[in-house]
Amino acid sequence: MKYCSNCGMPVQLRIPEGDTLPRHVCSTCSIIHYENPKIVVGCIPEWEDKILLCRRAIEPRHGLWTLPAGFMENAESLAQGAERETWEEANARVEMGELYSIYSLPHINQVHVLFRARLLDLDFKPGIESLDVKLFQESEIPWDTLAFRVIHEPLNRYFEERRRGQLGFHLGTIEDVCK
Amino acid sequence: MKYCSNCGMPVQLRIPEGDTLPRHVCSTCSIIHYENPKIVVGCIPEWEDKILLCRRAIEPRHGLWTLPAGFMENAESLAQGAERETWEEANARVEMGELYSIYSLPHINQVHVLFRARLLDLDFKPGIESLDVKLFQESEIPWDTLAFRVIHEPLNRYFEERRRGQLGFHLGTIEDVCK
Ligand SMILES: [Zn+2]
Ligand SMILES: [Zn+2]
Repeated sequence: MKYCSNCGMPVQLRIPEGDTLPRHVCSTCSIIHYENPKIVVGCIPEWEDKILLCRRAIEPRHGLWTLPAGFMENAESLAQGAERETWEEANARVEMGELYSIYSLPHINQVHVLFRARLLDLDFKPGIESLDVKLFQESEIPWDTLAFRVIHEPLNRYFEERRRGQLGFHLGTIEDVCK
Repeated sequence: MKYCSNCGMPVQLRIPEGDTLPRHVCSTCSIIHYENPKIVVGCIPEWEDKILLCRRAIEPRHGLWTLPAGFMENAESLAQGAERETWEEANARVEMGELYSIYSLPHINQVHVLFRARLLDLDFKPGIESLDVKLFQESEIPWDTLAFRVIHEPLNRYFEERRRGQLGFHLGTIEDVCK
């Protein structure tokens, strides 16, 4: 942020009075511009013993596999966001189930929320952000070409728990591995 | 948003190509400015059979009671955010426990996340955003002067569940009552 979105004048980065963190402050119109973490919502679409993955047609991680997920929009609930993303990326109709995992990713200012979901039919096909959409059995999951660690970690736990017959909610934090 | 935060020129509200929702778009530098829901994090600080509430020194709902909670900041996890807010509003040290509830509030573009937490000592006192900080037994909870519905609803469930001896996670949506 370089300019004030309210008046168009340059902003300064400084700690406002009574605050503890630096913010973009406009000295012309006095507005403080806060920046906050974004929510990514998605799901694990289930069909018999298979789950649905999408192959990314966009950066980052073009060509790699991921669960249907994306930024939550204003004016929707978490479950509505996950349903919308599944429709946009895979043209797949799902019935949202239990919340499955929430991961904080403090190094990129995101919180990732995953539901389990029941795939309602097999009429899915790639949306414009996907190259391919496919059902995978556990033995077929492309572990080496999954797009994100925040997909790898819950999916790995999902199959482990499914083998034990006890799927449960998990809250976690994924730290920056490059630090 | 009236001006582009990147170049300072006026923005227009329109649906970008390939998108489905109107966004603030800068026709000078081509940047699309997305707006997304914000996360509010807080906790139910527990001490024996009591919980800690804060009386708000700020608008909205000045003078009303609430749980320690506030906007999640960049570079922190959900639990860290809840701990920080509890420190800022009540100068209270807590050990974060289980996730207790998540409510989507689509009409105000927020997601509220509450943990249960163990109050570590009784050296709490009002922070600058609080007029008062106090421990309440169930029978003393000021139900009529609670600040927000998103506090009333989980707190009501909390005591109901505690009486039954089974506290569990809940996911919900709170719609606009004024519509
Ligand atoms: Zn300004
Ligand atoms: Zn611009």
